[in-house]
Amino acid sequence: MLKNDPLEQWDRENFLHPSTHLADFARGNVAQRIVTGGEGSHIVDRNGNRFLDGFAGLYCVNVGYGRQEIAEAIAAQARELSYYHAYVGHGTEASVTLAKMIMDRAPDHMSKVYFGLGGSDANETNVKLVWYMNNILGRPEKKKIISRKRGYHGSGLMTGSLTGLPMWHKHFDLPLPQVLHTEAPYYYQRPREAMTEREFTAYLVSELEQMIEREGAETIAAFWAEPVLGTGGIIMPPEGYWPAIQEVLEKHDILLVADEVVTGFGRLGTMFGSEHYGMKPDLMTIAKGLTSAYAPLSGSIVSEKVWKVLEEAADLTGALGHGWTYSAHPIGAAAGVANLRLIDELDLVGNAGRVGAYLKTRMTEALGDYPNVGEVRGEGMLCAVELTADRSTRAAPDPADKVTAKVVGHMMQNGVIARAMPHAEVVGFAPPFCLTEAEADELVEKTAAAVRAVFGG
Amino acid sequence: MLKNDPLEQWDRENFLHPSTHLADFARGNVAQRIVTGGEGSHIVDRNGNRFLDGFAGLYCVNVGYGRQEIAEAIAAQARELSYYHAYVGHGTEASVTLAKMIMDRAPDHMSKVYFGLGGSDANETNVKLVWYMNNILGRPEKKKIISRKRGYHGSGLMTGSLTGLPMWHKHFDLPLPQVLHTEAPYYYQRPREAMTEREFTAYLVSELEQMIEREGAETIAAFWAEPVLGTGGIIMPPEGYWPAIQEVLEKHDILLVADEVVTGFGRLGTMFGSEHYGMKPDLMTIAKGLTSAYAPLSGSIVSEKVWKVLEEAADLTGALGHGWTYSAHPIGAAAGVANLRLIDELDLVGNAGRVGAYLKTRMTEALGDYPNVGEVRGEGMLCAVELTADRSTRAAPDPADKVTAKVVGHMMQNGVIARAMPHAEVVGFAPPFCLTEAEADELVEKTAAAVRAVFGG
Repeated sequence: MLKNDPLEQWDRENFLHPSTHLADFARGNVAQRIVTGGEGSHIVDRNGNRFLDGFAGLYCVNVGYGRQEIAEAIAAQARELSYYHAYVGHGTEASVTLAKMIMDRAPDHMSKVYFGLGGSDANETNVKLVWYMNNILGRPEKKKIISRKRGYHGSGLMTGSLTGLPMWHKHFDLPLPQVLHTEAPYYYQRPREAMTEREFTAYLVSELEQMIEREGAETIAAFWAEPVLGTGGIIMPPEGYWPAIQEVLEKHDILLVADEVVTGFGRLGTMFGSEHYGMKPDLMTIAKGLTSAYAPLSGSIVSEKVWKVLEEAADLTGALGHGWTYSAHPIGAAAGVANLRLIDELDLVGNAGRVGAYLKTRMTEALGDYPNVGEVRGEGMLCAVELTADRSTRAAPDPADKVTAKVVGHMMQNGVIARAMPHAEVVGFAPPFCLTEAEADELVEKTAAAVRAVFGG
Repeated sequence: MLKNDPLEQWDRENFLHPSTHLADFARGNVAQRIVTGGEGSHIVDRNGNRFLDGFAGLYCVNVGYGRQEIAEAIAAQARELSYYHAYVGHGTEASVTLAKMIMDRAPDHMSKVYFGLGGSDANETNVKLVWYMNNILGRPEKKKIISRKRGYHGSGLMTGSLTGLPMWHKHFDLPLPQVLHTEAPYYYQRPREAMTEREFTAYLVSELEQMIEREGAETIAAFWAEPVLGTGGIIMPPEGYWPAIQEVLEKHDILLVADEVVTGFGRLGTMFGSEHYGMKPDLMTIAKGLTSAYAPLSGSIVSEKVWKVLEEAADLTGALGHGWTYSAHPIGAAAGVANLRLIDELDLVGNAGRVGAYLKTRMTEALGDYPNVGEVRGEGMLCAVELTADRSTRAAPDPADKVTAKVVGHMMQNGVIARAMPHAEVVGFAPPFCLTEAEADELVEKTAAAVRAVFGG
């Protein structure tokens, strides 16, 4: 395509971009970037710039860009049958095969998968199923949901309410009243410096128990959580967190919903975060890694325990009053089948674990002792560099200095993409699983260079 | 694929189908149908059965099945770049081009398009924009939404609340309290037989005005409506409806949101339902026809009036706290570009109008005087046959007789797909725009045969 075509103008005039400063974009103060291609861990824009994508799109292009096996599966499906619906027992070879492949990979106690389009709608489905289940079980007052500060579960009205970050609430009248937020398992920001991880876990458990007591367990339906906090800052749980939390939930008959949108299908070096941390969820939310974003597809996985209620309910209530036109879309299903096969064939889950560990080690070596780095943390192919004004006090940098945005901007200038996590001073990494050690080295070097450039060290 | 493979078993064991009686499906009492291909107005299943699809999937495969132009556009995009996100001013050639093509087709007073995945999430985006806008304008109490009984706007928590049909509410604790439902513009079910269409419109307007008065106009943000009621029964507005409703909304400064998911991009024989009925919406919701379902993609079109508020808001609030990972997905965008081009090249909007009119005429000839048909109605490529126990009193058939399901089942046995509309005794048609007159004849003949078989006449 010619460079002097009006694409840039069309963009500013017609396209309302998500998560964008709309006025600055319209005025031309936010850069446009029209991405045209990609291969492995790299993307290319139409001006010929090439970037090492340390965030895999939005932690979703897990197998990397340009996988022709998936492209050809999409192409074949498109030629054969681009669409038919999945209502009233309809399916396609791709969607039925993918349902089987997902359930083969999910924890043993899970039973069936409902297909959606993205993580937000899959969480929405799970909220509907939780409420429906408790109505069927004759406990209509047990409906509140506890999620966590810094949790991210989507951008809709309910899913944005589950999200525990102000940017998704402010001016939107959220959170809705059915949602409560308990403390984030953010050990770096623990209330007292002297707390051990175990003590911090005990504190979080106590906070949760107090919330349940205050509200009444008979009003609380579910606890909603990512195995590792993603958009809230890439934060791994402190020692002993999941077993202790689950004990509380079991005691009060509160369902556990594991939002595996970021962690599902290998990002932690294991197939699911639930497996990684010994969680036993009643419902799971999957999206991104299911197709590596090659086509939109998400899922709500229900456990046998939930399924049994749904099955018995059908004889009372008839057909389930829930469905999206594009549930189990054939193109998404074909992409999912090819993606999961590729992950197995190339042992990309193993690579995520191995190269992820290498990335964390190298990042720690490069920046672990830097005066303005409070912490380097990581698990599998997730890594975070927490910036600080003062390492000894863990004081946050002055927000007005926008240091994280500056670090990420400097890296971008040098051909590397990382993410300035919202509501945090955290440089986040979630590379494709095919990242090589050499590419991990490049991420580390350019991060260190950017940190030094911004802090002048 | 071999017939004796375990696909049927995998399906029943693993796949939680939307809008399905889950227990009957698991037990094998709901038929499975694995669809493998399609061409024009026909689909084929893996047992070799071929059907004339009188409902275009879920009124979405508007250009018909098997369009290789769209398949190849999807294939090319998949090979080049399957995914990059659209956050913070990012885009792709396909998504920017499609934004321009949509805005070229939208009414002149519309300004920009935000991309989502399906109709439900696009309506959700529009609710968020309406609330955000009124917060920015300093009227935080102006938030309630009036939609209509029999309206269909999705299946999520908020979008299912906008939907005015019990199946989407019952056992899900919906509608949410922010949503009110006014009377459906269902002339066939008017309260008094003697009412003219104009009188019925006056009644609907009066009902709406009373609701606004009761609630207080200062609490009502928006009126949400499909130009023609779709899932609620395929119901065209009575004479004078839209101008009269709009006058009320304008008087009370209530936004009009046109849900064009079914009507958008040609189904009424005009590009949009808004154009067809002289509506001037502040926001529009688009989905199905945007890509003819070849890949998931939806949109929220904002008017210049709404855009101006969003633009000014950005300087106060920063980046918009709204975004889906798969907003403006490149595969969906490529499908959309190819689909809109094909619609123009083949004059499919014109064909929808012409063959749709033919279908309605022929259906009226065949069934208009039949004792158990209360009404045949249609507009563009939408048609409905309303069944009745008694034509003279317009009495509904006994629900226990399930006559509509039986009619549709009989048609299916004879190779033709129509839809038994939920919460109505209506056989619904929404064929692909490429329907030929011969295919319209077949739809009519098999409908008439089924009606006669079920009612024994």
